[in-house]
Amino acid sequence: MGLEVVVPPGDLIRLGGAFRKDVSGYDLKRLIVGSEGTLALITAAWLRLMPAPEAAHPVVAFFASTESGCAGLEAVLGNGVTAAALDYLDAGALDHASGSYPGDVPNEARFMLLAEADGSTAEAARVRNELLEVLAEEAITVETPEPKALWRWRDGVSIAVAAALGGKVSEDIEVPVDRLADVIRETVEIGRRHGLEALSWGHAGGGNVHATFLVSRDDGGNLAVAEEAASDLFKLALALGGSISGEHGLGSAKRRHAGWPPRIEALHAEVKTAFDPKGLLNPGKKL
Amino acid sequence: MGLEVVVPPGDLIRLGGAFRKDVSGYDLKRLIVGSEGTLALITAAWLRLMPAPEAAHPVVAFFASTESGCAGLEAVLGNGVTAAALDYLDAGALDHASGSYPGDVPNEARFMLLAEADGSTAEAARVRNELLEVLAEEAITVETPEPKALWRWRDGVSIAVAAALGGKVSEDIEVPVDRLADVIRETVEIGRRHGLEALSWGHAGGGNVHATFLVSRDDGGNLAVAEEAASDLFKLALALGGSISGEHGLGSAKRRHAGWPPRIEALHAEVKTAFDPKGLLNPGKKL
Repeated sequence: MGLEVVVPPGDLIRLGGAFRKDVSGYDLKRLIVGSEGTLALITAAWLRLMPAPEAAHPVVAFFASTESGCAGLEAVLGNGVTAAALDYLDAGALDHASGSYPGDVPNEARFMLLAEADGSTAEAARVRNELLEVLAEEAITVETPEPKALWRWRDGVSIAVAAALGGKVSEDIEVPVDRLADVIRETVEIGRRHGLEALSWGHAGGGNVHATFLVSRDDGGNLAVAEEAASDLFKLALALGGSISGEHGLGSAKRRHAGWPPRIEALHAEVKTAFDPKGLLNPGKKL
Repeated sequence: MGLEVVVPPGDLIRLGGAFRKDVSGYDLKRLIVGSEGTLALITAAWLRLMPAPEAAHPVVAFFASTESGCAGLEAVLGNGVTAAALDYLDAGALDHASGSYPGDVPNEARFMLLAEADGSTAEAARVRNELLEVLAEEAITVETPEPKALWRWRDGVSIAVAAALGGKVSEDIEVPVDRLADVIRETVEIGRRHGLEALSWGHAGGGNVHATFLVSRDDGGNLAVAEEAASDLFKLALALGGSISGEHGLGSAKRRHAGWPPRIEALHAEVKTAFDPKGLLNPGKKL
């Protein structure tokens, strides 16, 4: 809701505060949030706290194909079911992670959706039942696993995938949800063109894809090839009207892939100069 | 979620799009939202739609004082009751508007809270019961009026207040919720110092106050005095760590009251110059 920041060379300013709405000036607060330390140093923040949900029930569905899984996802969104989480694993991610799944993964499963219903006890139960009903149409099986074991397993997916060959290059792109199936297929195809195993998982409900290329630790050249594959992936995200970064920013590694047209490049440079004319803050990052 | 805009002299750019998260660059989209047409012309927008609630139940509580009303409001927020609306009327606003209220206003009522519970049928009923329980502690009476009649009446509050003397100067400040009672009292006090009847109503849950000074149409000098009273009100909002505009922007009328320190003034000017170096867009507004 508000930030207290220091702007170079040393101006302490407050933007927003302990109140909900502020339309008195340009939204400089939002400009600083996500700026990766390149515009200002944040010295204090006012946060809005939300009550923790009384109950949370995960619902897991397995599908025979990416297409039927994405149809299931769109049915959840299209029916206005307000899930608190809507994650997915593609066939490749499932292959590497299903061994430790706290339950049975059907042999023919090529796509997995993990949804969660939360809220008051009654509301969480109601949304869980809606998820079960909507997902049953396309799924092979739908189940309600024990939350702790499920999310502990989900947290380990990245590690299980990395363990396959010893290393991975994982990117974090964002695309319109109705292009999710295309991106999941194309990720595997981009890997194939570069001679790499590729797979993905992510936060399907928002169109977020953790596209991943597996590399061996014994083969140094592997990593350079995976970086080329990632470059193709970023081009795909931009071509589909998406973003090359949904969660983790640009840093110095992804900056050259931003693909901004000249005017957006210029606006970024001018914003940076307004806040930090001498380039003192986190140089080489974000822009 | 996304904007297509034209930036002077004629660059068409897209910021964000049909996806949830984007942290690839500075949040230029948020900078344009609320910029009152001074940075860019919006030619298309991607919106996120939320399912309409199945049910909505208003809950109205009357209190014997501003203090007990604000205590009731803080009890709703402090108990984590997720009301969809939390509006208030102070004693002066009630005086002018209670005549047409679709129900009985207790004689001793000096403060009114209008809350709304919404969501699925069961969830809306659950939240309504929580509101009734929490508000009953401090209120004289708590009731669940018919929604349409209640909100039609609420929409008419501004007109009822204006009708008292024929005119009003109404401002829209935002303060931390725990200072709401102070602001309600101070609004009346500022009016008194200027020889004007003053009152307020607003969106209490977010700390939004429609502070209002009544003026007569027959007395031209009245209006200038009310503008001076409004100026005192803006100083009060800033002194309390709030904002001089929660909803309606600055335009040309409120700009001189912004009270920004020099560095914030400079940042606004530099942002404006980056987007619109020749000052073509909505000149004289916002900054």
